[in-house]
Amino acid sequence: MKKVALVMGSKSDLSIAAKSKDILEAFGIEVDLRVISAHRTPYEAVEYARDVYKNGIEVIIAAAGKAAHLAGVLAGVTHLPVIGIPIKSSFCDGLDSLLSVVQMPKGVPVACVAVDGAENAAYLAIQILSLKYEDLMQKFIEHKEYMKIDVAKQDMEVRE
Amino acid sequence: MKKVALVMGSKSDLSIAAKSKDILEAFGIEVDLRVISAHRTPYEAVEYARDVYKNGIEVIIAAAGKAAHLAGVLAGVTHLPVIGIPIKSSFCDGLDSLLSVVQMPKGVPVACVAVDGAENAAYLAIQILSLKYEDLMQKFIEHKEYMKIDVAKQDMEVRE
Amino acid sequence: MKKVALVMGSKSDLSIAAKSKDILEAFGIEVDLRVISAHRTPYEAVEYARDVYKNGIEVIIAAAGKAAHLAGVLAGVTHLPVIGIPIKSSFCDGLDSLLSVVQMPKGVPVACVAVDGAENAAYLAIQILSLKYEDLMQKFIEHKEYMKIDVAKQDMEVRE
Amino acid sequence: MKKVALVMGSKSDLSIAAKSKDILEAFGIEVDLRVISAHRTPYEAVEYARDVYKNGIEVIIAAAGKAAHLAGVLAGVTHLPVIGIPIKSSFCDGLDSLLSVVQMPKGVPVACVAVDGAENAAYLAIQILSLKYEDLMQKFIEHKEYMKIDVAKQDMEVRE
Amino acid sequence: MKKVALVMGSKSDLSIAAKSKDILEAFGIEVDLRVISAHRTPYEAVEYARDVYKNGIEVIIAAAGKAAHLAGVLAGVTHLPVIGIPIKSSFCDGLDSLLSVVQMPKGVPVACVAVDGAENAAYLAIQILSLKYEDLMQKFIEHKEYMKIDVAKQDMEVRE
Amino acid sequence: MKKVALVMGSKSDLSIAAKSKDILEAFGIEVDLRVISAHRTPYEAVEYARDVYKNGIEVIIAAAGKAAHLAGVLAGVTHLPVIGIPIKSSFCDGLDSLLSVVQMPKGVPVACVAVDGAENAAYLAIQILSLKYEDLMQKFIEHKEYMKIDVAKQDMEVRE
Amino acid sequence: MKKVALVMGSKSDLSIAAKSKDILEAFGIEVDLRVISAHRTPYEAVEYARDVYKNGIEVIIAAAGKAAHLAGVLAGVTHLPVIGIPIKSSFCDGLDSLLSVVQMPKGVPVACVAVDGAENAAYLAIQILSLKYEDLMQKFIEHKEYMKIDVAKQDMEVRE
Amino acid sequence: MKKVALVMGSKSDLSIAAKSKDILEAFGIEVDLRVISAHRTPYEAVEYARDVYKNGIEVIIAAAGKAAHLAGVLAGVTHLPVIGIPIKSSFCDGLDSLLSVVQMPKGVPVACVAVDGAENAAYLAIQILSLKYEDLMQKFIEHKEYMKIDVAKQDMEVRE
Repeated sequence: MKKVALVMGSKSDLSIAAKSKDILEAFGIEVDLRVISAHRTPYEAVEYARDVYKNGIEVIIAAAGKAAHLAGVLAGVTHLPVIGIPIKSSFCDGLDSLLSVVQMPKGVPVACVAVDGAENAAYLAIQILSLKYEDLMQKFIEHKEYMKIDVAKQDMEVRE
Repeated sequence: MKKVALVMGSKSDLSIAAKSKDILEAFGIEVDLRVISAHRTPYEAVEYARDVYKNGIEVIIAAAGKAAHLAGVLAGVTHLPVIGIPIKSSFCDGLDSLLSVVQMPKGVPVACVAVDGAENAAYLAIQILSLKYEDLMQKFIEHKEYMKIDVAKQDMEVRE
Repeated sequence: MKKVALVMGSKSDLSIAAKSKDILEAFGIEVDLRVISAHRTPYEAVEYARDVYKNGIEVIIAAAGKAAHLAGVLAGVTHLPVIGIPIKSSFCDGLDSLLSVVQMPKGVPVACVAVDGAENAAYLAIQILSLKYEDLMQKFIEHKEYMKIDVAKQDMEVRE
Repeated sequence: MKKVALVMGSKSDLSIAAKSKDILEAFGIEVDLRVISAHRTPYEAVEYARDVYKNGIEVIIAAAGKAAHLAGVLAGVTHLPVIGIPIKSSFCDGLDSLLSVVQMPKGVPVACVAVDGAENAAYLAIQILSLKYEDLMQKFIEHKEYMKIDVAKQDMEVRE
Repeated sequence: MKKVALVMGSKSDLSIAAKSKDILEAFGIEVDLRVISAHRTPYEAVEYARDVYKNGIEVIIAAAGKAAHLAGVLAGVTHLPVIGIPIKSSFCDGLDSLLSVVQMPKGVPVACVAVDGAENAAYLAIQILSLKYEDLMQKFIEHKEYMKIDVAKQDMEVRE
Repeated sequence: MKKVALVMGSKSDLSIAAKSKDILEAFGIEVDLRVISAHRTPYEAVEYARDVYKNGIEVIIAAAGKAAHLAGVLAGVTHLPVIGIPIKSSFCDGLDSLLSVVQMPKGVPVACVAVDGAENAAYLAIQILSLKYEDLMQKFIEHKEYMKIDVAKQDMEVRE
Repeated sequence: MKKVALVMGSKSDLSIAAKSKDILEAFGIEVDLRVISAHRTPYEAVEYARDVYKNGIEVIIAAAGKAAHLAGVLAGVTHLPVIGIPIKSSFCDGLDSLLSVVQMPKGVPVACVAVDGAENAAYLAIQILSLKYEDLMQKFIEHKEYMKIDVAKQDMEVRE
Repeated sequence: MKKVALVMGSKSDLSIAAKSKDILEAFGIEVDLRVISAHRTPYEAVEYARDVYKNGIEVIIAAAGKAAHLAGVLAGVTHLPVIGIPIKSSFCDGLDSLLSVVQMPKGVPVACVAVDGAENAAYLAIQILSLKYEDLMQKFIEHKEYMKIDVAKQDMEVRE
């Protein structure tokens, strides 16, 4: 079974995180959906990151806003690739979240996607798992084909 | 004995942190100067924050740059007041560091000072300790007097 | 009696400042809630900052927006620790307020919290007072425990 | 005698402020050059702003950097027009200084010029005094003529 | 008769400019309210700026948004003091307007107020005219007194 | 027949792009309205840019948001002038779109207009075509006259 | 003869503008190199823009920094296409220049290139003139070929 | 053999890209180092991205600056995971590069690392390949251990 951890800093991030979950599950990936806070439950964050690979999870997606330390803290502990979703905050549309996620220091990478880019976090996780799971790669190539057809359809509509 | 923890994310932050140390020691405060990284030594960070008060430390100053999670991670664990110094990074003069330190979520405050504001971090720690240690308050009032005299001296110089 | 001054630049900041007040009072701290403007009532600002400690106040919280000088002006006069809340303005979500509060020059610190971070200003005041008042420290540790339980509850909800 | 106050927050701002001084004196205006800090000498700032008009000063120029409260604090006290020069700081080329000077709240204006715009602060003071002193207006019109000739000369040089 | 020109780049700026007009008229100042565009009516802009002083106008207020060149263009022509109001645009709350107004090159000052700071533009014009018209200075001092009373009233309300 | 290509990255940009289309058609220019995505249909983007001139198209307008690569990718392929419209995104009012369009590297220019500046993209295309088509130049001069009259009308309205 | 106007706000912009000039001349285009300031020589700016087309000039390039009104003012007067080069200023690497050039209001476009993007301004002018002058188009296509070869050469070098 | 493509937009990015290369090779990964430009060699970019997986490459790293479209264009074509390194430009320390890389639209993810974060791009590629290649995971865990020891060493040094 393919498994991805999808961790958010607060239940209020669920509407964004759910977009990742839906895509992952549509690709047949099991999602461990969790609320863990780097600031309010630091021990749980460290423990979760330390043990998560034991349950067969191979990629972690972390969504958080403002001084968004969640992805970075998990990445500090685990050896698994960590994808960070900066959640749009009330300050400059999430500039704080973006910089807190993307500007990681040397040695501890986080793969940052766009602000509120939950769909792309899921697709990136799928691309990463595709290295190992051939069927996912096929599905992802189909996703790219589907997007082309969708754009072609939009193109046809505006040309009329 | 009055004690303050002065933690930096990397030894490269020492030249900034040293400004805090000098002021604190000039005020007769013992400084526990440490390099602990929220990303590279996450367990040590959590453990340090958990136990630091047992050694009589009453205020923590944390200096870090870029996605500067150090102050936030320590604040997540300890009940002591945490002062954060955003270290100037190579991105927009430390805008990333500043937002990573100051934009903490509800419930876990960090007392943020200016970018590279190591002197003020020390003075703020002194003001906080002054609540309990009368002699520090007197010295801090003297510091304010000294600043006045210094400005007056500068004023005299430019008037000539 | 534990006392905190909670000063805002205009009555329009009351809805934010009230969040500080509620938390402080829930912790058994008396709040001196005031409207004083660094620009419209400069004499009052200076006098208030000069005398406030005489009434047993030990920490000042100042909330203001735009070119938010209130915290800085009070900090210039008093020896007490001053916590600044940058109020969200109509310009870049309070970037002006944030920089006016946090970028204090050497020698006169303000402990800056997040934009509109009134709750954290209160918690920071409580952490500072905890150095002196043991009961506050216990209550603050309980607050941290409560937050953990709250996150655990959110975690349980999303896992179902 | 025409008089302008030229106040800076620190002697380190002198190299910028001197550009204002030179222009003002070239226009025959007496300059009261001062170092007064809104944060380190708040009483002096308030007193200076309160009494300055008594010495025949009709315009105040205030130069300060970072959380640059000087112009705003002086403007809060005096009824004279206050021109603010945001001094380039080490943070985003003085974005902090600029916003601290220009974003004044309703009722207490500061006339803000460009970051490090000391020359323009002087010219603006001259334009303001020109309302009352006819000779200054003539000199300012000559200044504008001189600039035209200078541009024409530059134009000639590049055309060759 | 005291006269101020109040020029806006488009009739859509009227709701902001009207705030300047109301204050100026309340102070007994005649307002020449105009729509002139630096980009769409450049000849009119230059001519207006050239001749405006002949009608007894002594200060110009210019309000414009986006690449807000109006104040700068008028200032390039006239010898009168020009106050610029950056109008809030749809880009970063008027960051474009602010920088286009405040960052004037050496030799041609514009007195910039806050984004949408129409009230302060009026008060600044009044302060400038006060150099010449004693009655305006008295009224402006009353305005400052009124603000103090207003703050005191707000203070009383929140203390209850 | 005069022809302009008007390409957008997604049908959701149509409401903005339509403003370009309406102006172009009002000037008698045929518009090839298309949805082509640099990211989802990269082959189509390259092919379209390669062949578009064969259909008599002489200017390309490209509208896209976020990491807005469309204009740049088309400009990389074609020798025709490419006008880029940065579409307002959910991040800082399209700061991402603006910088992705305007900051093109040496050798491959894109003519960038304001964020959501679809009208100006059309007018710029008309100005460019005017070099070749005299009638367009006449119409554009009329457009400028019309704008003057419109401002004059607004001026009259506010003066009453 | 093909002619382009290349106007800068100050002779200090010459080192940047010279990069445009060199490319234009290499393509056989005559360059009218000028220093004209929107602020210091406003009449000259308006007159130049009004008459420039009479000398056979078909495209205008304008380079200016800070509150960079030059391109906009010229575009307000002329019907020719105007290309704006925002010159890097001492404030945020020319953010002020960029926004002053690119954020033009509806009806008066400026074709903005990157900050200090003098080469691209020249290439864009060449692309525009190519609509009318077939030989320029051929040369521009050769330029694109040359760039490909250059990249291929770089590619070869790093692969070794 | 494990293989990673390391593509840069210009040879001038080599000093940054070399940091990725050194780390990848130290981990026993073969690097296909290339200069390919999304703007100057668009066909080559598309072709390279289309065929790269056929040579056994499993991850692509793309480094580019300014309007940095390289990573996005490659990601549009390939199904492989693409890591983007925003190269520091002369505008706001690479804010343009960062936003051009990270703000990718829905459906086409790029894994963005910090500005100039070439080391982390390599480590992220290693983490991704670790899903498939057990030995890499072991080496990456060792890298994390090494970092801990390095911090501990720094800690010891500052404590003395």
